[in-house]
Amino acid sequence: MNERVERLQKKMQEEGLGACVISDHSAVEYFIGRRFSCGERLIALIVTTEGLPKLVLNELFPLAPQTDFELVRYNDTEDGVQIVSRFLNGKVGIDKFWSAGFLIRLMALRPDLEMVDGNLVDRIRSVKDPVEQARMRQASLNNDKVMTRVRELIQTGKSEKQLEQEINAAFRELADSDPSFETIVAFAENCADPHAVPSDKILEEGMSVIVDMGCKFEGYCSDMTRTYFIGKNTMEDVYDTVLRANLAGIAAVKPGVRFCDIDRACRQVIEEAGYGSYFIHRTGHGIGLSVHEPFDVSAVDEIVVEEGMCFSIEPGIYLPGVGGVRIEDLVLVTKDGCEVLNHDPKDQPVL
Amino acid sequence: MNERVERLQKKMQEEGLGACVISDHSAVEYFIGRRFSCGERLIALIVTTEGLPKLVLNELFPLAPQTDFELVRYNDTEDGVQIVSRFLNGKVGIDKFWSAGFLIRLMALRPDLEMVDGNLVDRIRSVKDPVEQARMRQASLNNDKVMTRVRELIQTGKSEKQLEQEINAAFRELADSDPSFETIVAFAENCADPHAVPSDKILEEGMSVIVDMGCKFEGYCSDMTRTYFIGKNTMEDVYDTVLRANLAGIAAVKPGVRFCDIDRACRQVIEEAGYGSYFIHRTGHGIGLSVHEPFDVSAVDEIVVEEGMCFSIEPGIYLPGVGGVRIEDLVLVTKDGCEVLNHDPKDQPVL
Repeated sequence: MNERVERLQKKMQEEGLGACVISDHSAVEYFIGRRFSCGERLIALIVTTEGLPKLVLNELFPLAPQTDFELVRYNDTEDGVQIVSRFLNGKVGIDKFWSAGFLIRLMALRPDLEMVDGNLVDRIRSVKDPVEQARMRQASLNNDKVMTRVRELIQTGKSEKQLEQEINAAFRELADSDPSFETIVAFAENCADPHAVPSDKILEEGMSVIVDMGCKFEGYCSDMTRTYFIGKNTMEDVYDTVLRANLAGIAAVKPGVRFCDIDRACRQVIEEAGYGSYFIHRTGHGIGLSVHEPFDVSAVDEIVVEEGMCFSIEPGIYLPGVGGVRIEDLVLVTKDGCEVLNHDPKDQPVL
Repeated sequence: MNERVERLQKKMQEEGLGACVISDHSAVEYFIGRRFSCGERLIALIVTTEGLPKLVLNELFPLAPQTDFELVRYNDTEDGVQIVSRFLNGKVGIDKFWSAGFLIRLMALRPDLEMVDGNLVDRIRSVKDPVEQARMRQASLNNDKVMTRVRELIQTGKSEKQLEQEINAAFRELADSDPSFETIVAFAENCADPHAVPSDKILEEGMSVIVDMGCKFEGYCSDMTRTYFIGKNTMEDVYDTVLRANLAGIAAVKPGVRFCDIDRACRQVIEEAGYGSYFIHRTGHGIGLSVHEPFDVSAVDEIVVEEGMCFSIEPGIYLPGVGGVRIEDLVLVTKDGCEVLNHDPKDQPVL
């Protein structure tokens, strides 16, 4: 039996759960080391408090016989939820990303079950084991390497879309990876949108550039943001404030503090500089096999930080119609502080 | 008020629903003409039987003031589900792709509500209006154009991955579109896996090639599969059987038949040729703003076909360890039959 499944079973017993239904691709991969992309078709890894997990999988997805879980097949003419329903009892932790349609069908088939949010899977995944830590580290080293190339690629005359394509190609060349999420490239006033989608806007002298990007190493994601200026830093005060907030957030990370404390440390710098209302998002998010994982570094997340957790610190200031600055690094919580996984410089934003 | 929302409200009244919660990106786009990618953050378009729809959206996603729906904002420190819960009453149709975690939270907040599968949205979307039909037609014409290029790109010495990259580039060049789903390129025995992921396998003389690909036009998806042979058709009987099944499926399409009848027409050809157990998936799937939409052309789908529906006909025969053949076209149901949206030839598979 694998050690991660055992950790889950122990937590299930503590919380009185009879079963967990796990469906998110990255969560399935976490427990059984394999990733399936089943589209809208049902996939469910069912962990009960004893015995081997069961993987309910459409027969369209080939898989050699397994020893660490039991494979349960269905086909396109069968009701996969009915098959899942046979293995459940009592209080059932449901993957938060499972499709509501499956859950509604399951509740109709088994009104006796009590459905609860399967967030204890999140708790287990949030603390990275040494193998995972090594992969997170390498993913960020690869991301650093591509960011070095990005500084060469940033040239006036290019469009956001063109630069995005070149960055994605650099990931394939230098990191043997596709992007771990859709690369954000924004110029000038487009930087005021934290989730800007690359457009045909052309880079000109004097503009700012935000690049928010990541890749994968053996399944694990990196994620980093840098803000640059072409020729001259036109937002010096904003940039310095965001950089100090980034450093203050990192300095606040250690076991025993709450996520909201880290958010506060970071947000306070921005508030004191007078930009509080322009820092419109959480300070960061957990990361691992998925690029966004629990927990949030936010004002409302009171979870206590533990050694081995990995998350982003990414303060930003967004001035509508003008521009914005965001600086993001990943951190890994150590015994008495944290290791910053990104080594790319952030004190020389002018290109 | 827009006409699509009115159609939904009429169906809701017929079925006694007080509200629908719509969250799938393509469903939101269908009703309000805008697509949002909110990652794990909550988005919900709430349609009640009267009045303007409400769009509950994190304030991180910019949007100008609207007249055709009411914008309801929340931020990273607020509970979006609680905001959604205020607008609901009675029997609520839940988007089948909504995250189970949100649904479980909603059920805890509002135990008085009755949650049902929001599949009446699927029924409305399955019948394409004239604007949608024109876009579906153009998306498939663009896909045909790229398939013509694909026949030139297929060359011995290339790997599956390399050919995939070249096809994706051709979509951007010829159709101004990214692929509408992950392009499938499989050689030789890899063709036996209907969802093969492109590998480093190199194309050699005498091998077969499956290309399953699509692009988008104004949001609407195409999807087509062709099977080729390099130098010599090594699976003549299999190819001819699949082609006859594809044509039999298409010939069976008209208003009034059930999806299972079309599946039967198609499957029967393959069964009579002795390959029945090697046709391991449904005959087809609905398509539109999403590449896979309800309903299934399958043995268990008894929905009656209506004019304006659009779906794939894609029989295949998969011989493990040997290879496989799949031939897929999209059809649009007309008054007394169907229009085949793909015009790419399928009777000359030898390159």
